[in-house]
Amino acid sequence: MPANTPLTADARGVFPIAPTPFFEDGTIDVDSIDRITDFYLACGATGVTVLGQLGEAPKLEHAESVDVAERMIRRAGRLPVVVGVSAPGFAAMRALTREVMDRGAAGVMIAPPNTLRTDDQIVGYYRQAVEAIGADVPFVLQDYPLTFSVQMTPGVIRRIVQELPSCVMLKHEDWPGLEKISALRGFERDGSMRHISILCGNNGLFLDYEVERGADGANTGYAFPDMLCDVVRLQAEGRREEAHDLFDAHLPLLRYEQQPGVGLAVRKYVLMRRGLLSSAAQRKPAAAMSAQARAEVDHLLSRLARHDPRAAGLASA
Amino acid sequence: MPANTPLTADARGVFPIAPTPFFEDGTIDVDSIDRITDFYLACGATGVTVLGQLGEAPKLEHAESVDVAERMIRRAGRLPVVVGVSAPGFAAMRALTREVMDRGAAGVMIAPPNTLRTDDQIVGYYRQAVEAIGADVPFVLQDYPLTFSVQMTPGVIRRIVQELPSCVMLKHEDWPGLEKISALRGFERDGSMRHISILCGNNGLFLDYEVERGADGANTGYAFPDMLCDVVRLQAEGRREEAHDLFDAHLPLLRYEQQPGVGLAVRKYVLMRRGLLSSAAQRKPAAAMSAQARAEVDHLLSRLARHDPRAAGLASA
Amino acid sequence: MPANTPLTADARGVFPIAPTPFFEDGTIDVDSIDRITDFYLACGATGVTVLGQLGEAPKLEHAESVDVAERMIRRAGRLPVVVGVSAPGFAAMRALTREVMDRGAAGVMIAPPNTLRTDDQIVGYYRQAVEAIGADVPFVLQDYPLTFSVQMTPGVIRRIVQELPSCVMLKHEDWPGLEKISALRGFERDGSMRHISILCGNNGLFLDYEVERGADGANTGYAFPDMLCDVVRLQAEGRREEAHDLFDAHLPLLRYEQQPGVGLAVRKYVLMRRGLLSSAAQRKPAAAMSAQARAEVDHLLSRLARHDPRAAGLASA
Amino acid sequence: MPANTPLTADARGVFPIAPTPFFEDGTIDVDSIDRITDFYLACGATGVTVLGQLGEAPKLEHAESVDVAERMIRRAGRLPVVVGVSAPGFAAMRALTREVMDRGAAGVMIAPPNTLRTDDQIVGYYRQAVEAIGADVPFVLQDYPLTFSVQMTPGVIRRIVQELPSCVMLKHEDWPGLEKISALRGFERDGSMRHISILCGNNGLFLDYEVERGADGANTGYAFPDMLCDVVRLQAEGRREEAHDLFDAHLPLLRYEQQPGVGLAVRKYVLMRRGLLSSAAQRKPAAAMSAQARAEVDHLLSRLARHDPRAAGLASA
Repeated sequence: MPANTPLTADARGVFPIAPTPFFEDGTIDVDSIDRITDFYLACGATGVTVLGQLGEAPKLEHAESVDVAERMIRRAGRLPVVVGVSAPGFAAMRALTREVMDRGAAGVMIAPPNTLRTDDQIVGYYRQAVEAIGADVPFVLQDYPLTFSVQMTPGVIRRIVQELPSCVMLKHEDWPGLEKISALRGFERDGSMRHISILCGNNGLFLDYEVERGADGANTGYAFPDMLCDVVRLQAEGRREEAHDLFDAHLPLLRYEQQPGVGLAVRKYVLMRRGLLSSAAQRKPAAAMSAQARAEVDHLLSRLARHDPRAAGLASA
Repeated sequence: MPANTPLTADARGVFPIAPTPFFEDGTIDVDSIDRITDFYLACGATGVTVLGQLGEAPKLEHAESVDVAERMIRRAGRLPVVVGVSAPGFAAMRALTREVMDRGAAGVMIAPPNTLRTDDQIVGYYRQAVEAIGADVPFVLQDYPLTFSVQMTPGVIRRIVQELPSCVMLKHEDWPGLEKISALRGFERDGSMRHISILCGNNGLFLDYEVERGADGANTGYAFPDMLCDVVRLQAEGRREEAHDLFDAHLPLLRYEQQPGVGLAVRKYVLMRRGLLSSAAQRKPAAAMSAQARAEVDHLLSRLARHDPRAAGLASA
Repeated sequence: MPANTPLTADARGVFPIAPTPFFEDGTIDVDSIDRITDFYLACGATGVTVLGQLGEAPKLEHAESVDVAERMIRRAGRLPVVVGVSAPGFAAMRALTREVMDRGAAGVMIAPPNTLRTDDQIVGYYRQAVEAIGADVPFVLQDYPLTFSVQMTPGVIRRIVQELPSCVMLKHEDWPGLEKISALRGFERDGSMRHISILCGNNGLFLDYEVERGADGANTGYAFPDMLCDVVRLQAEGRREEAHDLFDAHLPLLRYEQQPGVGLAVRKYVLMRRGLLSSAAQRKPAAAMSAQARAEVDHLLSRLARHDPRAAGLASA
Repeated sequence: MPANTPLTADARGVFPIAPTPFFEDGTIDVDSIDRITDFYLACGATGVTVLGQLGEAPKLEHAESVDVAERMIRRAGRLPVVVGVSAPGFAAMRALTREVMDRGAAGVMIAPPNTLRTDDQIVGYYRQAVEAIGADVPFVLQDYPLTFSVQMTPGVIRRIVQELPSCVMLKHEDWPGLEKISALRGFERDGSMRHISILCGNNGLFLDYEVERGADGANTGYAFPDMLCDVVRLQAEGRREEAHDLFDAHLPLLRYEQQPGVGLAVRKYVLMRRGLLSSAAQRKPAAAMSAQARAEVDHLLSRLARHDPRAAGLASA
């Protein structure tokens, strides 16, 4: 299979984090993979990330992971697909990387294991990861201290970027994180770090200002990736207040979806209501959404519909 | 000095977390203590908490802590004042508790040390704390896993409430936390736990739905405590959509202020712009706000002013 | 292939934790698997555990893991073989469990992920694990807070044992841990918990007193498993001071090998010097032993040889 | 009061960590402070540390801490006394430092708060601590990851030493820690770090080899500080095997006392049996030693007495 164009440090825009669609019985819903991928293409996404933290990757057997990635790569066509390959050991990371790169992935994403503490441990881990997967595979550095308990200073990120040429993108999810973006872009300006792409995660909770700080876009799974695309585009066009108006209208729901644990259930529910997933099911073990939580999300959708027609008619009540 | 009315499990409304005001040279600005206390009284607060997590308590010498608490207690008059007495040892906790209760505090707030892990350790810690401060001192249980790394299940909170009658309030800052409120109120309904007051922290990030879940109000330091009071009041009056409209207008700024670390600088800056603090200074060590962050807060204030006149004219630019 | 006898709660004696033998080039040294298995049989071990925490399991690809387990199961003959199946997701855990049980494993060992905090989370995790692997597969509960940061009280262990009949053994590695053994045996005496096997890990650092507290033996990888067998046997025969004399002679080396990180290198070095492994190589990434560390281990072996002839001639200098 | 000689980077030998002696009713037993201080002087200690991690400092009110330190400073005469001043805030740290330095302390010891993660955070914390206490106060850097969860690489320690001239000693308690000593001494040899004193803690569990790696001695609370002094002296005299023989004889008990939590009870019990404390009491909250634990310690003392006459007659049974 011909490989997609490799991921580069010039990537911009929105790479949605794709959920893994399941039917109620836990089997993989491949039609929904196609449908959501088509949606990403249609709404202006510039790439896709699959098998990320919220892609329920640990609930997939190895062969399933490869299948899900391959299906999305095929359907995404011209869009670069990044595959999450974080694993407790380098053997599993290498195996999955090889298989998905052979099938046309544009690059891989690697999160740090939550046992890393010191700067040297963090840099050393990524050095070893690159040895394992090969220096020719572009990778995304995931910086998500809230979930992984690993704190990377701007200086540590610079060390990784400078030492490892295959690091082409930062999935920026530190919190707070605005000053970190400014610091990294400052390193680029003062010549101490080469340019990398910075796409922001954390459900986009600060995307409004992150792009103003120099981020290149978003890399997150909020259930309205079309809004993320619009905000990035409006900011690029200099229509700042319009960007903020749209973002602020979504913020109540976005904040609700950003909650750890229950957030994935909310996201899948909204994606189902939007017709992009045939079911909101998660594979077990899964945290279910209570009736009251669903009523709250419906309420948020109804309120959002007053500002964004894309939310109209989505509430189930 | 006559003691204030003790804190009880019937407390409702908004207890702002008061900042400790400093001048630029690090000395305590007592006039600002009076001014902000008057403001709390005027805007409908039903209590105040001083020397909390964001009150820079660890930067105060013991005598200063007592002075700050005493000043606020005197000025607050009829308002109950809760004093944060969390400390690494029970000796310091007991000493501060005695001194502030003697000066008229209504109760104390105790956060768990971040070394606690098991359910039994958590319950045991509060048992020992009550032995140290005395079973006659009403106390607030602070449940803030994001900062303290201590996770209390609803069942653990119930054990503490049932075993320790002096536990009268939960400062609820778990995240996500909506289901926890529902679970605790469910315990009350099924008779397995006596009623306690639940006031919500975490800068009020979910206050809109927390009060709908059964919380009694807020106990947090957002720079517009008057908005918090309004939201709680509107919800109590059944004006639900008005409450959400007001809350949503503040959410972009509220979210910005809720960031760990830099949040306190933002809060003090806005309180200064509102004329409630004479300076935004923190005692060292302090994280300063960058010029860009200040511009962002000004931008947020300008946008907020379109919906809430209390924000008009606050932006410095 | 005929299954081995399943692991039961009556297991006693010593189950060495087998290292995974590698050649210098990183390939698996299957002859050393046979050799060390024969040694375990000869020295009185009553079982073996493979692919444990120190078996470098995360460095093996899935098929390799199955091969290593199968090789050891075949060679071990009558000895029950327990296979470590801890994984970040239940899909991988289930897959490996099925394959090794099909090949004759006696049971599996499951460590908790280091994100678990509350009692309910811990119990819930094991409930889900049993759902994943099947209630018919005997499993070993690994309680190792130093490495996994998960603290299980005796009460939590009792909840797991009572709720999940397939939990037949505790790999006890809490530190300190003597009172925990007494508490669990107390639960058995007062009828609140059924009997389970307790084998002790943590390199045997407290084995001398653990067996006196009621533990059934050892389940650890110290490079002299024959000493562990002797201590357990001597204690069973009532030859207490002889047991302590032998144990104390080994304690200086045992303590040295028990160090996190470097410990595995020490263990493989000594096993190589004993002729049980053809190489001390670890698969990358691996912490090498410094020249000075090797000299220290040689010194410890020389000193040990004065008390235990099995250490004679092992020092490389 | 005339100040003692300030602590310098040339400190060598053994600085025992002094316990805080209490009577059964929780009051401070000042006579035992004198008695144990005299013992330290008699057995060859070259300094003393008071109010350390195991000195129950958090259970003391501020005035009591100053009293305990002052009493020991007076009695210790020519011996330098280091005072633990670790605190959650710099205000309390500065206050205690000033008071004990005014009373003749030789320096202070500062442990890192367990929230520090990155290299920059660690260095920044010590920079701020020195600003708080004054650059003229010699301080001991405590590196104890097992308890504080803060991991300092050799490089971070070098940054602190090079930036802060008042850092004169490392209390080395990393585990494993032998290579760290070698690395730091290597920095001194290659000229990249000035010389500092390295005294080892962690109950002396690796003191036998730590002094061979370049450590200057011990700074820990094992109940036989006279043994620690002997081992350091024997090694200095080149009597290596005698040093190891003595150390190994103590290792079974030393390991037992090194257990977290219960260790302090063991230590105070043995010190009481030695006649150095009038009581083994701890102030509440305290973990009591079970009857079985006491029997084990008695057993260990009886066995130790076969090799070291100082342990003769100490067992209570």
